[in-house]
This record gives sequence, structure tokens and C-alpha cells, in this order.
Amino acid sequence: MVTSRASSATAEAPLRSALDRFFAPRSVALVGATEGSSRFGGRCLGRMIEFGYAGTIFPINPRFQELRGLTCYASLADLPQVPDHVGVVVPAEAVLGVLNECADIGVPFATVFTGGFAESGGDKGRAMQAEIGRLARDRGLRVMGPNCNGVINFRDGFAMTTTATIAGVRKPAGNIAVVSQSGGVGQVNTMWRAQAAGLGVSYEVSCGNSVDLDVIDFLDFMIDDEETKVILMVVEHIPSGPRLAAAAHRAAEREKPIVMLKLGRTEEGGRAAASHTGALAASDVVVDAALRQLGIIRVNDTSELYEQAMLLRTRRWPRGNRIATTTPSGGNAVLLVDLGAANGFTWPDYQPQTRQRLAECLPKLGSATNPTDVTNVAIGRADIYSACFDAMAADDNIDTIVPIFTMSASGDLQAASEAARSIDKPVALLWTGGCTDNPSLAARDVAATGVPVFTETMACVRALGGLKRYGDFLRRRQSSPSASRPANADPAAAKRALAGGGSVHTERVSRDVLAAYGLPRLPGGLATSADEAAALAAQYKAPVVLKIESPDIPHKTEAGGVRIGLSTPDAVREAFDEIMGSAAAYKPGAVLNGVLVQPVAPAGLDMIIGLTNDPTFGPVIVTGIGGIHVEVMRDLAYRVAPVSADEARAMLRELKAYALLEGVRGAKPRDIDALVDAIVRVSWLGHDLKDEIVELDINPIRVGAAGEGVWVLDALVSTAERGA
Amino acid sequence: MVTSRASSATAEAPLRSALDRFFAPRSVALVGATEGSSRFGGRCLGRMIEFGYAGTIFPINPRFQELRGLTCYASLADLPQVPDHVGVVVPAEAVLGVLNECADIGVPFATVFTGGFAESGGDKGRAMQAEIGRLARDRGLRVMGPNCNGVINFRDGFAMTTTATIAGVRKPAGNIAVVSQSGGVGQVNTMWRAQAAGLGVSYEVSCGNSVDLDVIDFLDFMIDDEETKVILMVVEHIPSGPRLAAAAHRAAEREKPIVMLKLGRTEEGGRAAASHTGALAASDVVVDAALRQLGIIRVNDTSELYEQAMLLRTRRWPRGNRIATTTPSGGNAVLLVDLGAANGFTWPDYQPQTRQRLAECLPKLGSATNPTDVTNVAIGRADIYSACFDAMAADDNIDTIVPIFTMSASGDLQAASEAARSIDKPVALLWTGGCTDNPSLAARDVAATGVPVFTETMACVRALGGLKRYGDFLRRRQSSPSASRPANADPAAAKRALAGGGSVHTERVSRDVLAAYGLPRLPGGLATSADEAAALAAQYKAPVVLKIESPDIPHKTEAGGVRIGLSTPDAVREAFDEIMGSAAAYKPGAVLNGVLVQPVAPAGLDMIIGLTNDPTFGPVIVTGIGGIHVEVMRDLAYRVAPVSADEARAMLRELKAYALLEGVRGAKPRDIDALVDAIVRVSWLGHDLKDEIVELDINPIRVGAAGEGVWVLDALVSTAERGA
Repeated sequence: MVTSRASSATAEAPLRSALDRFFAPRSVALVGATEGSSRFGGRCLGRMIEFGYAGTIFPINPRFQELRGLTCYASLADLPQVPDHVGVVVPAEAVLGVLNECADIGVPFATVFTGGFAESGGDKGRAMQAEIGRLARDRGLRVMGPNCNGVINFRDGFAMTTTATIAGVRKPAGNIAVVSQSGGVGQVNTMWRAQAAGLGVSYEVSCGNSVDLDVIDFLDFMIDDEETKVILMVVEHIPSGPRLAAAAHRAAEREKPIVMLKLGRTEEGGRAAASHTGALAASDVVVDAALRQLGIIRVNDTSELYEQAMLLRTRRWPRGNRIATTTPSGGNAVLLVDLGAANGFTWPDYQPQTRQRLAECLPKLGSATNPTDVTNVAIGRADIYSACFDAMAADDNIDTIVPIFTMSASGDLQAASEAARSIDKPVALLWTGGCTDNPSLAARDVAATGVPVFTETMACVRALGGLKRYGDFLRRRQSSPSASRPANADPAAAKRALAGGGSVHTERVSRDVLAAYGLPRLPGGLATSADEAAALAAQYKAPVVLKIESPDIPHKTEAGGVRIGLSTPDAVREAFDEIMGSAAAYKPGAVLNGVLVQPVAPAGLDMIIGLTNDPTFGPVIVTGIGGIHVEVMRDLAYRVAPVSADEARAMLRELKAYALLEGVRGAKPRDIDALVDAIVRVSWLGHDLKDEIVELDINPIRVGAAGEGVWVLDALVSTAERGA
Repeated sequence: MVTSRASSATAEAPLRSALDRFFAPRSVALVGATEGSSRFGGRCLGRMIEFGYAGTIFPINPRFQELRGLTCYASLADLPQVPDHVGVVVPAEAVLGVLNECADIGVPFATVFTGGFAESGGDKGRAMQAEIGRLARDRGLRVMGPNCNGVINFRDGFAMTTTATIAGVRKPAGNIAVVSQSGGVGQVNTMWRAQAAGLGVSYEVSCGNSVDLDVIDFLDFMIDDEETKVILMVVEHIPSGPRLAAAAHRAAEREKPIVMLKLGRTEEGGRAAASHTGALAASDVVVDAALRQLGIIRVNDTSELYEQAMLLRTRRWPRGNRIATTTPSGGNAVLLVDLGAANGFTWPDYQPQTRQRLAECLPKLGSATNPTDVTNVAIGRADIYSACFDAMAADDNIDTIVPIFTMSASGDLQAASEAARSIDKPVALLWTGGCTDNPSLAARDVAATGVPVFTETMACVRALGGLKRYGDFLRRRQSSPSASRPANADPAAAKRALAGGGSVHTERVSRDVLAAYGLPRLPGGLATSADEAAALAAQYKAPVVLKIESPDIPHKTEAGGVRIGLSTPDAVREAFDEIMGSAAAYKPGAVLNGVLVQPVAPAGLDMIIGLTNDPTFGPVIVTGIGGIHVEVMRDLAYRVAPVSADEARAMLRELKAYALLEGVRGAKPRDIDALVDAIVRVSWLGHDLKDEIVELDINPIRVGAAGEGVWVLDALVSTAERGA
């Protein structure tokens, strides 16, 4: 998929502008249109007309002369002009023929609603879908679907879909776009509910099986669309990590946030992985890490999509985590601070001039603490909100303002909304109750004026958290250097080290590969006899470790192939013989190269660094504390490779075990800089040799005290099978 | 607080029935009633009348003859009869005088609305509040408040409060009670929003500073109330663990669920704890554990309170985690299964007879898989819901039914609601969209018919999780034996071991205390000279460990007071001298009893067991993997002591590190039974000696392979200061 995409990459810039004709066609044909509304083709035609589409509609159905007052044509070939977009609602077996007709007359875009392909049609369905994909590539027809529920364009008034969510008066266009594979989740849970919450939508597209046009194509279009300020995505399958990354970078340049609900989390999480590091890099943790790296806000439910959009659409990025709150209810302030603090927010003291200004506008207030209790002073004094918010907006201690309302007068809510619009710091109203003088006034009415408003504390805090992370992402993006290849990283040398041998490489080869990227290695040599082993040991003037070297024995300890702390020549000789014997007994017929002799490493903290090749995102680097932590505690941090030193440092800070690197209970701090450097180097190795390295596992890398460095104590590289 | 309560425990059974007069008084006086509605006393009087209270109201205010058509009295002494309940809305300084007047004429209940006491009145406010507490105790007047917002009784039509949430037509009474300290959070976020979601409320009470009547008193009343089926609590401070436990046990007997939002989570979590184990047992994790033990469902936000009640009020307890789902939207099913699986739910295959029945009622369906796609077959076929639900209810593979609706016809929703009511397994409708033929129909209308309905997937899954845990709790409660004191637990011997010495006891004393409760100990003896040490070592025929014994040196390693693996008499003698020297240098003037000599313990997994005395819940036991896990990974499990063997085993299963006890990667399984026994014994020690032991820390307890047992390698007991 990625490869076939890459070959047509040059065509993508035109595509996203060409999609104008997809979303706002001058004329549309609907193949399979029919009468009434009980069948799909009839409902779809009805919705298009009722939605107020102003272009030309060509119903296609040989059984009718006319449908809903429109001339009906027997086939696409009969049309008086080439439509910009053709909808296809014919049986699965007939779809390919219709698409060929589209290509014959030069139609640029087709949407296939019909189901029964890869999603439920078995082998035959999959084969038919593959045919559609080939047709799209070969004949230049761009196809959405199959098994999709079409497109809605509130800006230009075009809808080709059956969804009941657009029945009735057309809702006003807004600045939030929805891109979804699922029709129900995109149209109902996300678009319809966002509109019910007072938000406006620019476009909704439900692209189904995505045989050709996919969520990233539509994302690309939304990034360029001037009116769209926030893009909400519901994605079952990310078609390509690199394409998503390219789109996300363009979105970040425009400061246009992307919020994504990624379905299939648990299915993927539970997917059994064959190999050891493969099991660690379960896909969903990679998705999590990759989306964070790209500044894409990942959410868990559709409600979070539009709640997040509620704040993001104002395009005010907070500078930090410091909130000012006004409240008529002490308990509500406690609840907000409680949930806020658990999510990293603080309510700092105001600056002196702010306290002064608040005291002036809230004369009954003893002291202007934060949260600021406005009980008995704010009621009926709507003017105080602009004074309070102005003072808070001018306070350098405050990044975001969250006024609380419970049962409130409409005048107060209106005054607060106006005050919120007039300043430039982010404001989120938390309105947990109703309106005292106008019971029908609801949060959606406040939201419709453009002001973020939440009715639940946790939802408010969660959305503020996403906003904060996005602001952090934009700042980090501007200030941090991007990852650059470290000195002494020699891809050619690494490839030479991997040349020859099978797909699983010995510890010694693996260390050579790492050394080619500048990772420090302990001295050591291969002994093929007990005497050689003793001679090597004598060089090191220290106790030594002996380890079997065999491409057939990746797990040396299990094979009785490791002996540590040998101090005398006799002990070394004896150990050599024992190891060779154990290994031969463990795996008769295994190729035994000999025994690796190394000095015992200095004391330190054992960590792991691993690489896997994720099918979506490519090379992924993982690090964590070694030993039982890897498998039992799962205290691991992931990133798509390569990473900068800043990013590597952020990975380490994510670990619960970071305290051990800093030094707990009087223990010496570890050499974090050297570990960061090692992570960066391994990440570049993964990036540069992504076509060779399937998996790499440094376990452990020993981290000395600050200034002492790190040592690779064991490493294992797996490469692709020859010819695979 | 606990102690003073305990002495009046005999009065509690009558209190909860006496509270009838508090919630449904025959007559009420309001001291501080006034005209209009701009002031508190006027609003409160107005709400009471508008709510339709049918009893006698006595406004008390010397400035008026009449208020709102009611005779107004100058003082309580002037009343023609003794009111059942007196509301107090006078300035803080005047409150005590009014309460004395209440007591003078024999009023049973008073509610003090006035603020400015402990919550904001400084030292003077705290002192005045303490006076009210003394008056309540001394004169038998039961007082709610101060700084509260009163009571609402929808069943009998009595409200004494100012909240705007009850303005307008009185809402019908329901089966959900709300007990809150905060007025705003209880009345607005919980009660009003529950009603807005279609639920009915029986009582709401906001008890403020809780100087006398507190949340547990009101909880007790609600447990006895026949109409109340679910109790929602918003609690800032749990007044007493033992009283809460007693109430929770009564509630469990009646299968009446309690759902609690505990505020102040982060404040408590961040509270610095002076001592080591104290820091581990941060209060909030104890609250978490204690509430779980008591079957109280803890939630994080007020919305979760009524969402949880939505399901619990039907009193259908699922037998397990297996869900059946019908859906018109594939994407919505994926979202539900995704979030459900992450929360422990499964969607198993139907039994053959269910598949048969579903195929009969859904003829177009190829195969009746779960989730069951009803696209294109269910629309306009409302009858299918009763057939489907009946079949699913009869299926032994299914515990709970969750039908999904998106944009749906009112007839379908009605048919599904009726079908849901007619079966006895739990049903939760997940309705993510709107109604196609009646746009004003909303989830609240379905909920008002008694059927659980959710509009957000995550909220649905979360509430199902709470329901499942409550069902598990009820079953476990019936089937498990309660904790009983193990054999060979000798409180007197433990107390004797602690007699003498200061508040921090030596390892040897600590082991004697543990031995009194039957914990196995390694052999060992105290040596006061190098020769004695060597003689002791010779007895053990194995390498030995030497450790300094000093009541002044709790952390022996830091003092250079530990030497391990000594195999020869000379090594033992030399180590003795070194240890004594190091210890003397580390802490000049420390009392050095000598050196403890013990054989090296067998290999095993090092765990910790600790005890703390929680101010609310009393003795709390904690366990986890030793070493860095304690402080860095925080992989710990807590319970209020004592615990049964089942509960101790559940603690271990909670640990991420449980896999290590079971044996990972070919490692031998550990002696979990012996560890469970040790936890039970320590928990009883904590329970029995709660007045003596402030803290106990076994670090580590070494766990041998299955059948080998456990060994206490180090232990430290702290007791209360003499005279403290």
C-alpha cells in the first residue's frame, strides 16, 4: 500500500485541490437512483434534493423516464455532459461495469455506496474490491468506497448520502470537518451530535472500505480548506504512517488541529505477536506514540471529538497549565480543581495588580483567591465578568480562564460569553446547571455563539488537557531542532556487518552493527578453544564473562551458555568446556562459533533499547528499564524513529522508572546523556536500515553513573529473510 | 470524632427512623425568614411554599407580623406548637442563641444555613462551630450544617433550601436519593441533571460542614427508605470508616447500591507523609480500596453518579461480563466492542438455539453473529426487539443486552423499551443519535419509562462496569467466608514483645511481634562480641548475615550495619567489629545492643507487607513487590484490615507483578499460599493491636518456591509514643 502510494506521490498535490469537484460538483449522476424512499437509491436522491443541492442532478436508471421531476437517463453514456461526481448504488456485481463506464466518459470522481465487498463479501467480495482498486489506479478514476455512506458539504450545500441526520432544515455551515470511515459513527455520533451541541460543521465524509480515496486524502483536502479550523477523524485503519505524517506536518504549519478516534484499539492490542520485541511493540501503543509525535490529539469516544473541537476552534493556544476560575459554588470549584490537578492543571495565586482589580470589581470579596468565589456578588451583576476576565487575561500567572456557572441567569451567561470573546486567552465556560430566567436556554445556545461551553467537569478538564497538549506541541515544534543524523553513524558499515549469516544475528555481529552507529562496546573476543579463552581473559586483568556464540541459539542463558565472574585461567578453561558442552546438548546440530570472552561490565542500571518495524509507521524505537519491567510492568516508551535528543529525553521522562535514572534514595544519578545519545543512534540505525532490520533488541544496555557512559551488554538483531 | 460517635452508637438505630421528622416534618419554623426573594431567608421561605409543602410553616422574624400570608412570630418561644424541624438563617454570631432556643422548647432537628464557620470564618468561625457541636451533643438537638443548603423531599413534598433547581412545577418523586455535603454539586450537578436525564429523585440533602448530622446519618436513613433504590453521595470528608462500613453492610443486605463521588482526591494524594510506609499508604488509595471492599461504587464526576444510577435502579445484577448487542451501524458496534473489551467485557457467540431463534425473526440475516447487525431488517419492524431480547435473555452465554440505536423511529425505541422491561436480564439502550419521526423525543423520555439509556458509548461501558462490579460484590459477599482470626495469633504475646523500648522497635523485637501471630522466622541470635558472633554462625552450618541491632538505627544499611554471605569464623569476627565501628561512627551515642547473626535466607522473590493506621479507616494493610517497585513503580495493593485469605489473594492478583508470583518465562511459581497466609496474619495483627501499632513494615518478606514458605528478612514496627 505504502509503496504503491509512494509511486503516485507527485499526483497528490493536485488531488487535494481537485477534490473541490468531489465535494462541490457542478453536476452529479446517481446510478441506481429510484423512486420513493424505502430503497437506498431513492433515499439518496431524495436527500440530495432536500438538502438544496443547486447543481445539476442526473438520475440514472433504465426503468424510469423521470424521477422526482428530474429527467432520468438509462446509462452514463446517455448523459448530455460529464458529471463531476457519480454516485453508485447498484448491486455489487454491477459496480465494476458502472465504474468502467465512468472512466469511459472521463468522470473524475465516483462514490460507491454498495456493500458486500471486503467487509462482508468473503473471497469474492475481496476480489471484486481489488478489481475496483486496479481500475482506479489504471484508469485515473478516483473512487470513494465501496460500502460507504457518502459526503455532506454544508458550505456549498451538497449531500450525497442516505443519512437521516440531515433531514429537515439544513443546518448552518461551520468550521469543523468530520472525516470518517464509518457512516454511522461519523454522521450520527460525531456530526449530528456536534451540531446538537451547538457546533457548526463544514464537511462530513464517510469513506467506508477506502479502496482508493482514503481518510488521509480527505484530511489533506480539509487542511487546505480555509473555512475548516478543526478536523475530526474516525479511523479504523491508518492507511500509511508516512502519508499521515506528511499531512500532519502541513496541518501543524497552519496550526489546524486534528483530533482522532482510532477504532480497533483492543483488537490490535490483543493481537499475538510472534517474537519478543514484537510483543512489546503491540501496534496500539505505537499508534499512541506516533499520533502524539505528530501532534494529533487522540481521543477515546466520539463525544470527546466534538468536546475537543469546542475549544480548538477558537484557535487560542494556552501558554501553560495555569487556570483562573470564578465560581458561585464552592463544591463545583473543589470538583474542578480536583479533576484538574489530577490532569496536570494548577490554580495559582493572582498577581498583586490582578488581586487589586478583582477587589475593585468584587467589593464584597475579602480576598481575591483563585478559584474566585463570586457567591452573592455576581448574581445580577453581569458587568463583573468583563472586569474579571480582563484582569485575569492581563495576569502573567494565568494561561486559561474557566468560569463556573450552576443555575444562572441568561444575562450572566451572555455577559460572560461576550467577555470571553473579547479577550485572547482561552476561555471555557463550565455550566453545570440550567438557566433561571429562560429554562429553554441550554449550553448549545452558548456554544452556537462561538464560546466553548461544557456541562460536565471531567469533559471540560479532558478537553483543556488536549488543548494544552496541542499548544505544547506547537511550541515544541517551533523551538526544537528536528532529529538529525548523529556523527559517526555509518549505514554502509552497519550493512557490511549484517552481510552473510541468516536472519538472526549473533551478539557479536549485533554489536558490530551498533558500533557502526557509534554505540560504545566493551572489549571482547571470540575463543574457539579453552586456551584461547584463557589467553583472552588474561588481557582484561579483571573477572570475565563467557557466552556461547551461535546463530542458532539466540537465548544463551537457557542453553547454559553463559558463565559470569570468572577470575582464574582454570576457571575460564573449565567454563569454556562446560558452555560448549551445554550448548551442544541444548541444541544438537547447532553451529557453535565458539565462546565470547569479555570483562565483567562495571555496575550500573540495566535498561533496554529495542527497534521494531511497524507495518503502518515503519521503524519504531522503544526503551525502558530492563529485567522484569519489560514483560511484567510494561513500563516502556515508544517513538517512531528517528528521534532527536529532546524526544529521546522525553521518552525517558515518560517512564515511571525515570526516578531510578535520576537517582532515588541517595543513589547516584545515572548517565542520562549517554543513554539519550544511544537511543538517538539506535533510532537512526532503525531509520536508515529499515529495509534490512526487522527487529533489534539491546537487553540490557547498562547505564553507568553520570559521566561514565553506557555499555551494550547483550544485543540481538533480526533481519529480513533473504529473498523475502 | 470516631470515639465520641462510638459512645452514642446505641442512639443510632432510633436516629435513622427519627429522621422521618427531619425529611417530612409536620411543622417547620424558619428563623430569619424575610420578605421578597433577594435575601436568603426570603428565597428559602418562598421555595418552601412554592414546592407545595402541606405542613405548617412558622416564619420567625421580629420585624414582621406576616410573611407571604403566613403569621410571622418574633421568636421560637412564641410558637403555638413545637416544630419538628427549624431552619436557621441568622448571622453566624446569632446561630448559637437560636439553637439554644430550639433546645429549650424541645425541637428535635435544626438546619443551619448560615456560613462563616469552619469553612471560611477563621479561628473564630471554627470556635463557633465547635460550640454548635457541643450544644448538639449536650442538649440532644440534632443539627445539620452550618453552611449547608438544606433538604428536598420529593416524596412528601417538603423543601427547605434556596436552590433554583426546584423552581417551577415540582418534579415527580423517584427512587434515587442524593446525599451531598456541597449544595451546588448535590443539587445542581447531581439532582437537577439526574432529573434532566429522565431519572426521578426521592430526597436530596446538602449537609455542609456536618458539625453533627453527617452524610452517614443521611445514608442510614436512605438505606431504610423503601422507595429509594440507589443512593448517590458527594462527599468531601468521610466522617468515620467504621460507621461507613456498618451502613454499607446494611445497604448490601438490602442490595441497595451506594455510588460515591469523593472530592479532595488530589489534595489528599499530594499530602506529604512523614514516614516511609505512611507515604505509601497515601489516603486516597486507601479510600479507593476501602470503598471497593464495602461494595461502594466510586466515580470520578457527577455525571457518572446518575449514569450509574440509570442502570442500578433496575436492580438487575448481571452474572458476568458477556454482552449481546443488536446494531444498525457497524461502526457503532466496533466502538462499543472496542471500549467494552478494554473494560473487561466480551461479546460471545450465541448458543445454537439462540442463533436459530434470531434467524427466524431476522430472516434476511445470513448468520446471527454477536454483535447482531440488524441493518435493513429492523427498520419498521418494531416486533423484532421483543423476539431478539427474549432469545438473548434465554441464552446462558449472555449476561447483559446492549441494543444500539442511531437515527431511529420512535416506534423502534418504544418496542425496544417494552422488550427491555419484559425480561429480567440487565438491558442498556445505547442511543447515539436522534429520533427520525419525532425530533423532540430524547433519551430522557426513554429513561423516564424506567429503561436505562445512554447517548455516549464510554458512559454506557463505564456504567456497565460499575453494575458488573456491584453484581460481583454481592455474589462474593454471599459465597465467601468473612475474615476470621487465624490459629496461633496471640495478641497478648505480641503486646508483651512490644513492652519496653521506645516507639521504634528493633528488627528482633519486630520479628518477635510477627512470630506471636504465627509468621515464620529464620533462626538467629544476638551477639555482643565477635566470638559470640562466630559461635552463633557455627551453629547454622551455612553462610550468615550480620546486622547491627540498635533502636536508634532503623535504616541499618545506611549505617554500614549489614554484612552478608560470611562463610568463615574469621570473616564473621571481622564483620562484627566493622559493623559495631560503623554504627558508632554513623550515630555517636546510639544504643548498640549488639549484632544479629542469621543464616543467609534461601533464594526467592522479595515482597513487602506493610501496615498503617489510616485516620479514617483504621489499620490498613499493603503489599507489593519489594525493591524499587515500592517507591518507583507504586505497584501496591491496599485493604482495610483484617482480610480473609480470599481478599489477600485478590490483593496479589491486583498487582501488575502478580505474574512474577505465578512464574514468568519458565521461572518456578512462588509459594502464594504462604504469602497469602502471612498477609492475613499481619492484617489481624494490625486489627488487634490498632491502639499500639502505628506502622509496620516487613521489607522484604522472601517468598520461596511453591511449598517452601516465606521468610521475614527484615521488619520494623513503630508504636505510639508513650503517653501520646
